[in-house]
Amino acid sequence: MINKNIIGKVLSFLLMGEAVFMLLTLLVSLIYKENDIKAFVYSFAITFGIGFLTFLLTRKGPVTISKREGYIIVTFGWIIFSFFGCLPFILSDAIPSFTDSFFETMSGFTTTGSSILNNIEELPHGILFWRSLIQWLGGMGFIVLSLAILPILGIGGMQLFVAEVPGPTPDKLHPRIKETAQKLWGIYILFTALETVLLYFGGMSVFDAICHSFTTMATGGYSTKQDSIGHWNSPYIQWVIIIFMFIAGTNFTLSYFGLHGKIRKVWENEEFRFYFFFTAGFSLIITLSLILFHDLPWFTAVTDAVFQVVSVITTTGFATADYELWTPFLSTLILILMFFGGSAGSTGGGVKIVRIVLLIKNGYFELKRLIHPQAVIPVRFNKRAVDQGIVHNVIAFIIFYVFIFAVGVVIMTFLEPNLDTAIGAVATTLGNIGPGIGSVGPTENFAHFSDVSKWFLSFLMLLGRLELFTVLLLFTRAFWKK
Amino acid sequence: MINKNIIGKVLSFLLMGEAVFMLLTLLVSLIYKENDIKAFVYSFAITFGIGFLTFLLTRKGPVTISKREGYIIVTFGWIIFSFFGCLPFILSDAIPSFTDSFFETMSGFTTTGSSILNNIEELPHGILFWRSLIQWLGGMGFIVLSLAILPILGIGGMQLFVAEVPGPTPDKLHPRIKETAQKLWGIYILFTALETVLLYFGGMSVFDAICHSFTTMATGGYSTKQDSIGHWNSPYIQWVIIIFMFIAGTNFTLSYFGLHGKIRKVWENEEFRFYFFFTAGFSLIITLSLILFHDLPWFTAVTDAVFQVVSVITTTGFATADYELWTPFLSTLILILMFFGGSAGSTGGGVKIVRIVLLIKNGYFELKRLIHPQAVIPVRFNKRAVDQGIVHNVIAFIIFYVFIFAVGVVIMTFLEPNLDTAIGAVATTLGNIGPGIGSVGPTENFAHFSDVSKWFLSFLMLLGRLELFTVLLLFTRAFWKK
Repeated sequence: MINKNIIGKVLSFLLMGEAVFMLLTLLVSLIYKENDIKAFVYSFAITFGIGFLTFLLTRKGPVTISKREGYIIVTFGWIIFSFFGCLPFILSDAIPSFTDSFFETMSGFTTTGSSILNNIEELPHGILFWRSLIQWLGGMGFIVLSLAILPILGIGGMQLFVAEVPGPTPDKLHPRIKETAQKLWGIYILFTALETVLLYFGGMSVFDAICHSFTTMATGGYSTKQDSIGHWNSPYIQWVIIIFMFIAGTNFTLSYFGLHGKIRKVWENEEFRFYFFFTAGFSLIITLSLILFHDLPWFTAVTDAVFQVVSVITTTGFATADYELWTPFLSTLILILMFFGGSAGSTGGGVKIVRIVLLIKNGYFELKRLIHPQAVIPVRFNKRAVDQGIVHNVIAFIIFYVFIFAVGVVIMTFLEPNLDTAIGAVATTLGNIGPGIGSVGPTENFAHFSDVSKWFLSFLMLLGRLELFTVLLLFTRAFWKK
Repeated sequence: MINKNIIGKVLSFLLMGEAVFMLLTLLVSLIYKENDIKAFVYSFAITFGIGFLTFLLTRKGPVTISKREGYIIVTFGWIIFSFFGCLPFILSDAIPSFTDSFFETMSGFTTTGSSILNNIEELPHGILFWRSLIQWLGGMGFIVLSLAILPILGIGGMQLFVAEVPGPTPDKLHPRIKETAQKLWGIYILFTALETVLLYFGGMSVFDAICHSFTTMATGGYSTKQDSIGHWNSPYIQWVIIIFMFIAGTNFTLSYFGLHGKIRKVWENEEFRFYFFFTAGFSLIITLSLILFHDLPWFTAVTDAVFQVVSVITTTGFATADYELWTPFLSTLILILMFFGGSAGSTGGGVKIVRIVLLIKNGYFELKRLIHPQAVIPVRFNKRAVDQGIVHNVIAFIIFYVFIFAVGVVIMTFLEPNLDTAIGAVATTLGNIGPGIGSVGPTENFAHFSDVSKWFLSFLMLLGRLELFTVLLLFTRAFWKK
């Protein structure tokens, strides 16, 4: 039996938490004294009120959470967060349409960064701050989820990485999760602060520096400027952001080791090495092509190439150069990169490097098995044999990913009849990146899409962010049986 | 150790066999007394001569073939066939360029049907006959391969279907292969003859009827007319071809049962049922869309829809309507269909229905396993539990397929800078279909591609036709070691 009470209780806490962050944003509005003050007051009141009411209704009853309730909480938590999170946009009239507001908020919480805004610079500071803050919260929320909660539910690439995480006995987990979560929050805040300072030195205002640090560390990609990072035209700012995007796309437990001086432990990690080499490889090819095909001076070529590659592989989605103007070979490479994603346990979305690597290794071994059918050849990762169950899980994930991508493209060509645009929109939302190709390229946005498209793409963002299975499970009969 | 002698001997037989078919085509040239007579005489002399010389050099030595030699023979057999098979095109000046001739011949033998010809109707009858004949030979060659030989090598979807095929003890196999091959040839010739008669009644000349029956039964798709089947503008001809394409995309052992009145056995076959339902489902959606979006009268809509769906799902590639002019939703559906392919043990290429079905089933079970991690849930097919090894093989196949597709698209956008065209060209050649999308749509051809592109696409045709693994294995170190 699914215990509705416990689900309600957890969600009520989450709502009250969200309300507190609305209050924080109200401070920003009060500083700038713009027309969004009332919106945050009302949003806070509604969100906190409903959260508190729900808490009162559900406060009694047991406190243990079963796996099944876990899945429901995770999925609906994200939806409810987006539902209430869009109140400030609607109430301040920054985004009058409910569909648009929900899209923008879901895109924020899932750290996607696809936007429907055409007039970013005209918006009040409170609204812009809220837009960046929800990405920052979504990013950290996902790390905690992927490092602490998803492995318990039996999904998530991190199962693989943190073998030292405790077994799935529910009662023993709580202290460990709390401790892990605290450490991760610490690192997250530290990096965000460091980036803010560095961006401020590069000429950004304090406000812009904070907002961009939020969305960099979350690999979210929302900017306070319509032209994104291109607005500053400063190689210094671009390189600072490159470095922090790369960190945000790295497993946060590795960052923890790195901060404690265990550099060797970082480099010995196979996923990190592949992450580094994929990034370097794509950057090199694109740099050379930019010099050859587009006659760019080498420093501009390197900066543009590395920025775009890191922005896409980490699923951040900041823009400096319009890769749509590059030769189709390069924009196709960018499109392919959208299927990589950051490391497991990072704020990045997408398929994730560890899965790609396991897939390649398993494929090679499958060939070997054709020659030596009797040989038992386990896939090895980080010098250990990987459990077959995990390999199956990874393969199933990737197949679902490709399948959902294909079905998504068909549906999108029905809704917005253009193949390139459909491919770009589905790849970028499912991978939580931000800009796509076609009419949703880095200099365009999603405003011109129909409402149905926006709801559909919001669903894809959620699906991608929760690593598919959490959401897909809710659509199976087996899940709801007995 | 790889025995080069036995490889040479088998290939020499294949070459002499090919030469005999050149002699057969010479008869056609002699009937029409066109300028291609000399070309076939020389082609025969060269092919037979080299085949015979190779035979003399390799006739001594052992006659048992190991698995490894099997892989080499299969892959190189197809290449050598295409190499010599293009002689008539070059020597008759029908296709002066070697690259173009090789592309056209590989496209023929692999039953792809992508063409570089702009002037089909100007070519002599002998050349057109040869073009159709190589498809017919390639089609049958592949059935024998997929029903009799690939299962021994441990690959091919047919392992799954014909559980009654003998085990992989090499000495016991020869009589069974011969018997199977004879039966299959019988059915193949029967259907080809039947279609020829029916097409002749529909108003085709004997010559056109034979050529189109050849390329229908092979799911090849070469036509003697530049406008393909659209040339006749006859619903009768279209429906005859639809029926025979559908038969050609069905497992030939099922056709054997069907011909012996065991209709129930055909319908009980799960792959057949899915093949039927996929075809019907796509046809229905496209019919309705053609009526709604393009205002076609219902009979035209049904005929156009069913023809295109069957032509693409069976990987034939005949054209009547230009699906490029349809709304992008429909051309995207056609593109997705390119990843289905016919049934295992048919002349069709692509991924094959059985693999798609197993993939979907396995994906669903993977979700179930998340809820019940302890439960052992085997995938069932045709009412039997499917061996895990086969499921792995199927999954590896599909992952390689998608991976090769993605890499292929990147390479093609480098060679021919247009994303749609690249996607279409790679999907259609890897799937052995024929026409693609973009600038290689059903009313266009591959002539405008660069030589490098043509060689690359020829390679993809071979890769697709030999179900990837046979060719990929030759690129692994493990294969060549000791």
